[in-house]
Amino acid sequence: MSFPYYLRVAYVGTEFFGWQIQSHLRSVQNVLWSALKAFDPAVPMPQGTGRTDAGVHAEAQGALVRLTRAWEPYRLLAAINAHLPLDVRVMEVQPVHEDFWPRHHALGKRYVYRLWQGPAENPFERPFRWHVQGAEPLMIPAMETAAQFLLGQHDFSSFRHQECAARSPIRTLRRVQISAQGPRLDLVFEGDRFLMHQVRIMAGTLVEIGKGRIEAEGMNDILAARDRSQAGRTAPPHGLCLDQIWYEPRWGIGEACPWET
Amino acid sequence: MSFPYYLRVAYVGTEFFGWQIQSHLRSVQNVLWSALKAFDPAVPMPQGTGRTDAGVHAEAQGALVRLTRAWEPYRLLAAINAHLPLDVRVMEVQPVHEDFWPRHHALGKRYVYRLWQGPAENPFERPFRWHVQGAEPLMIPAMETAAQFLLGQHDFSSFRHQECAARSPIRTLRRVQISAQGPRLDLVFEGDRFLMHQVRIMAGTLVEIGKGRIEAEGMNDILAARDRSQAGRTAPPHGLCLDQIWYEPRWGIGEACPWET
Repeated sequence: MSFPYYLRVAYVGTEFFGWQIQSHLRSVQNVLWSALKAFDPAVPMPQGTGRTDAGVHAEAQGALVRLTRAWEPYRLLAAINAHLPLDVRVMEVQPVHEDFWPRHHALGKRYVYRLWQGPAENPFERPFRWHVQGAEPLMIPAMETAAQFLLGQHDFSSFRHQECAARSPIRTLRRVQISAQGPRLDLVFEGDRFLMHQVRIMAGTLVEIGKGRIEAEGMNDILAARDRSQAGRTAPPHGLCLDQIWYEPRWGIGEACPWET
Repeated sequence: MSFPYYLRVAYVGTEFFGWQIQSHLRSVQNVLWSALKAFDPAVPMPQGTGRTDAGVHAEAQGALVRLTRAWEPYRLLAAINAHLPLDVRVMEVQPVHEDFWPRHHALGKRYVYRLWQGPAENPFERPFRWHVQGAEPLMIPAMETAAQFLLGQHDFSSFRHQECAARSPIRTLRRVQISAQGPRLDLVFEGDRFLMHQVRIMAGTLVEIGKGRIEAEGMNDILAARDRSQAGRTAPPHGLCLDQIWYEPRWGIGEACPWET
């Protein structure tokens, strides 16, 4: 018998080789598992809702842990955090039904890609924003026009890492929002699921459009080509953050998914 | 003949023993001077607008540098930043009149003291917020009531470090604002000048009032006592940030001071 708990996990990705356990490399899954084993030695490996790349941050990774005894959620949160390094924190804990499976019961995710356009990087936000330099500021209306082509269900083969193992390249992008505030530019992407590097390739391509190197309407051609070489460069990982995950409402976890009501 | 420039300097204070040069200790003033000497060996020591304690951050420290030749401001910004460590950045550069003297021509400063009240610290903001733990959230209305007693011109001897070298303990606090958003609580203090540790002692005392250890009206008695031992504990440095400095308008630097129009 096991006692399943859902954890919302936040981490600064800078010093991690991503979420997933890999031998000899520091991963979030591994430091979390080690923290759990400190007080529950027989605990199986925690399951995440999705992988994040090396260097990518998360405000809200979802993880399932199956403990060998029951806990008050606030005590479990404190116990895990007491054994985690400071760049990972469990932000919320709740008991969940034993049939809950994070990867299969997620309905959608929100990623935020953060950019900084000033001449000098802000030292407080440097680890969390891609510093885009150029004589001219990015052309946001062109980026917004281009982003509209990405909305909806498409074959995203042009926005997929060559090592992506997903069986289908078809994904549904539900929302893209571009918001600028002074030197800060935030690109918000919401969708059901994402291919490997999809958000970073979309972000990198939008930046090239913002610089005028690709026409806004070119986004449609890139999508139609289903060819990775047609899209822009992959934006670096440190600008990306897994911001939110939505689950099927029957599990009672977090907020309702905006497009499944 | 020298060429004076005003710099707005941002720094993450974590790894610094404050602004001011001290032998054998890492200071912002010293790393800035070293960066300047890399391309202008005869440059005198840069002058700051005020000191910040070890561990205190700045979005906007003001500094005057007197270079031996003229520069395009954007080139000077890039040259200095190329020689600075990543936890300090020059954010803005402008030429100023040779009679400008940052300490004497400042009209006011804004400090922000940042708190975090959640059960788990956010790993992204941990270096910049004081994590205040407790069974109950802080009582913000009591803190707001207490803060009103601090407004205006007072003898702030109760809110002054024993080593403070200022001749007079009289200071004028122009504005205090307490704003909460989820687990984040920001205390904003604006005034002409501040005594050593004044903002941190005011913040620490407000937190004790928020916890109910001191009555809101007790703030008036603490102020009247002119005795450091009557106030609360000094809040830790990492929650504090020098957010803005205003200068006399004749120098043409930055925004107008809100209370000198």
